[in-house]
Amino acid sequence: MDVDLQLRVESLLARYVHALDDDRLEEWPDFFVEKGLYRITTVENFEQKLPLSIILADSRAMLRDRVSALRHANIYEAQRYRHLVSSTLVEWLGAHSVRAISNFHVARIMHTGETVLFASGRYLDRIRLDGGAAQFEERIVVLDSRNVDTLLAIPL
Amino acid sequence: MDVDLQLRVESLLARYVHALDDDRLEEWPDFFVEKGLYRITTVENFEQKLPLSIILADSRAMLRDRVSALRHANIYEAQRYRHLVSSTLVEWLGAHSVRAISNFHVARIMHTGETVLFASGRYLDRIRLDGGAAQFEERIVVLDSRNVDTLLAIPL
Amino acid sequence: MDVDLQLRVESLLARYVHALDDDRLEEWPDFFVEKGLYRITTVENFEQKLPLSIILADSRAMLRDRVSALRHANIYEAQRYRHLVSSTLVEWLGAHSVRAISNFHVARIMHTGETVLFASGRYLDRIRLDGGAAQFEERIVVLDSRNVDTLLAIPL
Repeated sequence: MDVDLQLRVESLLARYVHALDDDRLEEWPDFFVEKGLYRITTVENFEQKLPLSIILADSRAMLRDRVSALRHANIYEAQRYRHLVSSTLVEWLGAHSVRAISNFHVARIMHTGETVLFASGRYLDRIRLDGGAAQFEERIVVLDSRNVDTLLAIPL
Repeated sequence: MDVDLQLRVESLLARYVHALDDDRLEEWPDFFVEKGLYRITTVENFEQKLPLSIILADSRAMLRDRVSALRHANIYEAQRYRHLVSSTLVEWLGAHSVRAISNFHVARIMHTGETVLFASGRYLDRIRLDGGAAQFEERIVVLDSRNVDTLLAIPL
Repeated sequence: MDVDLQLRVESLLARYVHALDDDRLEEWPDFFVEKGLYRITTVENFEQKLPLSIILADSRAMLRDRVSALRHANIYEAQRYRHLVSSTLVEWLGAHSVRAISNFHVARIMHTGETVLFASGRYLDRIRLDGGAAQFEERIVVLDSRNVDTLLAIPL
């Protein structure tokens, strides 16, 4: 059991969700390496290996563009997310890279106060762990439900 | 604080829920020792020490039978589960056996995409930890609600 | 990565939620230091630094009074809570004190069996870690929704 590795990965995952849930979206791209891949897809698409994505970005620059769009367009109704993450499994892929799989539930809280279980699914991550801070090389968000896409405003 | 023990137990619990949520039900019996006990009950029955169970199996063979029944009968509507597990407390029971208590929430996602908080409760586990892989000697699933039983198809 | 610290804090948080979810409310005040602060507020109040609280107690004695009131008044409908906690970030504040931030979801289960995602938010904790057991010097529960207050009966 590589205790230190497990907790370093869990710490990255925790810092990520707190940045989103606290609406510190400008920090979001920095959780990825420069050429990092971020993709949201559904479990149906993922299992059938369909290339369809709800969101796809393959660089930090694209993630920054997305944050700008969210900040300026601001067309979505005021809402908050609250992520819960558990059951993280970690394994080495190479000397400086690990694979991590986690489950998540996300609550959405509308400005009216209404709370719903908005999304559930898995995070499939490839994480770079070299001398510096741990960062995502790839984060694939596999949603359990195909009903979520039209509602997606904030990153998951 | 026995860090290594804590994370070994959490790893077993994580591998278990990923097997279920990924529909790898055939792997489910192997999380138990040969004469392992698996029981789903409600908190009312559990607190009153009633022997009533929603599901009861006392061997890996019975769990395999249950998987076969689920695979062949297949009468339930297509659905997925997504388990979140937290707050795991672990203590030694003997040289090769530990007690673990955890909380869980389970989301159910119907093929229509509808997501609901389906079940909540506690896992009360006795886990064998000897030279080999950690396995459940006993896993008692205590549901908070008595309304769940008629809906139970996939294991929890 | 201070592995031992992380798991000591997670253990405190786990013992706390099991005490509440098991209805062992009499143990609740002992999770706090004698002059411990417990506050439930909403994210709107918290972000605007408003002093408004849904619940505020600044000593173990006040927490004991609250437990007595809950036990004797008993005006609320029979219900259970099930807490999930994740994404705990820990940092030292001083030689014997740490800051911890966590996310939570709470399910409420009515005596009819109905289960809803009742509350979500963050725990903002200051925890004393000296020779003895870890205890809360301050626990601020920041709710995401302002609709929760009229329903609050059991502590969070």
